[in-house]
Amino acid sequence: MSQRVAYQGEPGAYSDLAAREALGREIETVPCESFDAVFERLAAGEVERAVVPVENSLAGTIHRVYDLLLRHDLSIVGERTLAISHCLIAAPGVHLADIRVVRSHPHALAQCEHRLRELGLAVEVAADTAGAVKALAASGRRDAAALASAWAAEVYGLDVLQTAMEDHVHNYTRFIVLARDATAEPLEALDGADDADAPTELKVSVAFSLDANVPGALFRALAVFALRDLDLTKIESRPLPGEESWAYMFHLDFVTDDFAARGARALEHLGEVAPVVELLGVYPRDDRPH
Amino acid sequence: MSQRVAYQGEPGAYSDLAAREALGREIETVPCESFDAVFERLAAGEVERAVVPVENSLAGTIHRVYDLLLRHDLSIVGERTLAISHCLIAAPGVHLADIRVVRSHPHALAQCEHRLRELGLAVEVAADTAGAVKALAASGRRDAAALASAWAAEVYGLDVLQTAMEDHVHNYTRFIVLARDATAEPLEALDGADDADAPTELKVSVAFSLDANVPGALFRALAVFALRDLDLTKIESRPLPGEESWAYMFHLDFVTDDFAARGARALEHLGEVAPVVELLGVYPRDDRPH
Repeated sequence: MSQRVAYQGEPGAYSDLAAREALGREIETVPCESFDAVFERLAAGEVERAVVPVENSLAGTIHRVYDLLLRHDLSIVGERTLAISHCLIAAPGVHLADIRVVRSHPHALAQCEHRLRELGLAVEVAADTAGAVKALAASGRRDAAALASAWAAEVYGLDVLQTAMEDHVHNYTRFIVLARDATAEPLEALDGADDADAPTELKVSVAFSLDANVPGALFRALAVFALRDLDLTKIESRPLPGEESWAYMFHLDFVTDDFAARGARALEHLGEVAPVVELLGVYPRDDRPH
Repeated sequence: MSQRVAYQGEPGAYSDLAAREALGREIETVPCESFDAVFERLAAGEVERAVVPVENSLAGTIHRVYDLLLRHDLSIVGERTLAISHCLIAAPGVHLADIRVVRSHPHALAQCEHRLRELGLAVEVAADTAGAVKALAASGRRDAAALASAWAAEVYGLDVLQTAMEDHVHNYTRFIVLARDATAEPLEALDGADDADAPTELKVSVAFSLDANVPGALFRALAVFALRDLDLTKIESRPLPGEESWAYMFHLDFVTDDFAARGARALEHLGEVAPVVELLGVYPRDDRPH
């Protein structure tokens, strides 16, 4: 039986594409209405994996996904970064000159704003990119187009009229692969590489909290990593408003080729300076855009 | 003449409300189609101030605003954090039982997902929250509602049927106030307080870059602040994909009651360890939700 992988959105969504890129084209992807539903289906054992976006180079970190990671007992077991490139998609045989209106998610429309204005096209918002392609295919309209991935055009049997519609080139989204049980892929197997020419670099994702009223607390927390020459690939603070004083939650990723020794000891040390430390996952690094 | 303040969105948008909360109810707010247009109008001198969101507790940091800050020669001169609470808004005299469909921005619809499902209401996406209220007012429909601020209901003469529709309570957005010339409000006047009982704490926003291939670079950069007992209120890394190696851009805020001495020297010191350092603004701290 092929692996079932939950994601948020309609078939053809960027998350659907990321799941196939990360886990192989032969997986069975399971569309869900919301991030909450994705996490619930994985936690309940209805699927074996989930793939969700965690950050986009233009829109930033998706905090909701971190909230759900902290609420559910799931682990990050992989990552995949996709270059996001929107295509102008229409029914087969339709020409650019026929198009009057373009539908897509507000983010996609905003990212292609200048290009759409050049083409003189009116815009209409849709709940998601792939959903706009699905609705277009169902409508049979020949004066309308949608902005979505080339994969969405393939899924619904429509044509790509133009590629790379976005105004800014550095638009990419980092997706993470989630599983119920991190020990399905034991860390010992990840540590050290079979192929000496291509050592596997591991990425470690951790969330921790610090009290806002302890001066220098963040510096001491980061010393934990600096003293062990562990390089950070992400650090982000997030204020947690409270009644009297604020606390901060931090989302931090670091890389190591030796988790069992330095990485694990760094996390033990972090536990001495941070009231809450949550290991979200240890997985092979893969954060260059594809 | 009243002060003109640009913001992104339709009249009644949360940015419109934030501008009035930050600068006084008597200002003239100037709606703009995009963040780009907001920055261009301020840079061109068509308005005196601009108010834009920089981070939301659920959706994260809005990187686009930081990109525009780095591209334009503008300064942050203030901040205001708003608790975001969506109201269910309908035409006067309409009852909850009459409503069949609710329109709003996808983020607002997602934030109120459970509540809307409980009420059995269908959803339709709109480009923005206030735009949905505007369209509802124009349509005269009595079977439809919109999700937006109470201020939007007031602007378009509609009624608030229910307040606090969101599923999560900690939903707030931090807005910044921008000006062409930071020296309009000299730092000397900000440093030290007139009222000894309520010393003015200053917040300093800075962007700096570090090479990804220099181990411990971030630790050295943060030492600049820790060694001077300057507390950070925000730190966020952002990978900048390059041809051969990645660089990182950091967005950092720190607080000080003595910018001229410790704050300014910390920034000089930061320039010794970071290839690019950009001071975005020095302004009175105000980051508790209102």
